[in-house]
Amino acid sequence: MSEIRILHEAELRAGVALDLQAVEVVEQAFAALAGGSVEMPPVLSMHMPDVNGEVDVKTAYVPGLPGFAVKISPGFFDNPARGLPSTSGLMVVLSARTGRVKAVLLDNGYLTDVRTAAAGGVAARHLARADASRAAIFGAGLQARMQLRALCLVRPVTRALVWARDPGRARAMAAEMSGPDLRVEACADPAEAAGFADVIVTTTPATAPILMADWLRPGQHVTAMGSDQAGKGELDPACLGRADLYVADRLAQTRRMGELRAALAAGTIADDGTLPELGDVVTGRHPGRRAPGDITIADLTGTGVQDTAIATRALAALDQD
Amino acid sequence: MSEIRILHEAELRAGVALDLQAVEVVEQAFAALAGGSVEMPPVLSMHMPDVNGEVDVKTAYVPGLPGFAVKISPGFFDNPARGLPSTSGLMVVLSARTGRVKAVLLDNGYLTDVRTAAAGGVAARHLARADASRAAIFGAGLQARMQLRALCLVRPVTRALVWARDPGRARAMAAEMSGPDLRVEACADPAEAAGFADVIVTTTPATAPILMADWLRPGQHVTAMGSDQAGKGELDPACLGRADLYVADRLAQTRRMGELRAALAAGTIADDGTLPELGDVVTGRHPGRRAPGDITIADLTGTGVQDTAIATRALAALDQD
Repeated sequence: MSEIRILHEAELRAGVALDLQAVEVVEQAFAALAGGSVEMPPVLSMHMPDVNGEVDVKTAYVPGLPGFAVKISPGFFDNPARGLPSTSGLMVVLSARTGRVKAVLLDNGYLTDVRTAAAGGVAARHLARADASRAAIFGAGLQARMQLRALCLVRPVTRALVWARDPGRARAMAAEMSGPDLRVEACADPAEAAGFADVIVTTTPATAPILMADWLRPGQHVTAMGSDQAGKGELDPACLGRADLYVADRLAQTRRMGELRAALAAGTIADDGTLPELGDVVTGRHPGRRAPGDITIADLTGTGVQDTAIATRALAALDQD
Repeated sequence: MSEIRILHEAELRAGVALDLQAVEVVEQAFAALAGGSVEMPPVLSMHMPDVNGEVDVKTAYVPGLPGFAVKISPGFFDNPARGLPSTSGLMVVLSARTGRVKAVLLDNGYLTDVRTAAAGGVAARHLARADASRAAIFGAGLQARMQLRALCLVRPVTRALVWARDPGRARAMAAEMSGPDLRVEACADPAEAAGFADVIVTTTPATAPILMADWLRPGQHVTAMGSDQAGKGELDPACLGRADLYVADRLAQTRRMGELRAALAAGTIADDGTLPELGDVVTGRHPGRRAPGDITIADLTGTGVQDTAIATRALAALDQD
């Protein structure tokens, strides 16, 4: 006799979409994190160099929610050559009252994709100008598409340029995402794409800067979400110096594996105790963007509290069925 | 379409027993750990004080094995008042080639119980005298029973004394475990129980010493397996000073949450780079017990490599069906 729910990817895809509700549950998660009562231990990370693989485990406990998630995210980088995606994984939801396993969400990383894109939506909603209508997306993978969709949920985006190392992939994404309300084009010049946009989202696993500080112009918002390891980084460290506001999803993480890491090393920004987290902006504890001409940067590494939030949402959505 | 195997507790109990084979797979895991190629990150630990709960996540990658386990172990200490066990949890087995989830072992902690007891068997097999026939078990819970059973697999134990804070529980365990080949009796005096035994196993969540150094006598082996948190400890720190040999399951863990922690604080033992791990003894890299009169201590905190080993064993056993 088992009361444990096993949910497969298809059910989870049917039950949880990247929509405004997803943005809102992730927003609430960041608000809870800023409230200080959330428990969120450092990410457990294991590297398996001989098989070119790694696994990360994230969790967070949000008092008041009925459960908490433990997420297991493997990344095996020889998989594409085998016709498999690099990332997969699952979430386990445990009761916050008894610790008993309530559900196993066999999502193969889908819920991570949603909560990651939703965090981009939260960042844009609180940091981009309200009239932001032009986007530039760096990268042309799944998260590039999802970040653009998240952006369209929170800002009146009508045009987007896509730059990617592989121009064919940028063109494919543009063709796929263009529609009556959104014109998406590939752009071969990253400086041109950057200069065009009110909101720039970088979505790549780059280990050397792909967005330079002198491409930025006043009024822009940048979300960098590709870096989630100490070896990665998408922004020229001078970007953080040039910005009027830098916001981390979690400073304890961005110091080690976000854009902040390289910027601290380069001395372009000071970690002087005043740097806000996204939850501080969500809750109004920090004012966020102060002027239309401000340049703002959100540095997203992915947090366990997002996982607990989206897993809770998934269970609630599927319970309604 | 999902190729993920979901295995429930009943199947796992039917497929994996605490037997010599379990001792051997855990022994091989310790040998692999000593070999230096195993990846075993620090335990992820999250405390939820407002619900008197905690969760630990352990993992380890052993090159050559087809998969690796990530184990989620919750402990919710108000559960007994609700008629539920404090601990539960599951293991997720991922492919060591692709990182894809291969199986979810919904064991409610059963495999942890087996691999924990098996490690006690490994310790006794390599550290207790070959003629050890008398055991003393401190504690009268599930692990007390399983440690005694593991001991009987590797040493010619014919008599055992059980001491527990609650004498009724010690009597119940003694009545339950006594048989034609093993006489088990409750003992109200822990010093008497200790003095009687060739092998002492402490299995309690004690936070103050329950085994004193001057109760020990030459030739004994002690396995302390109850401490798995910085606040716990079963041995008088002087025990480690009195012993001729101290062996950790993993020094990086016993320094922080094993018996070694309090002994280092008390200065009864020096962490001078010569302390061996169980795998060093298993592989012969360290000679282990040198003389019949030596006092030896094994300090077991529980390692991710044991989880990967027992999960691999479970999948192999059930594949044979």
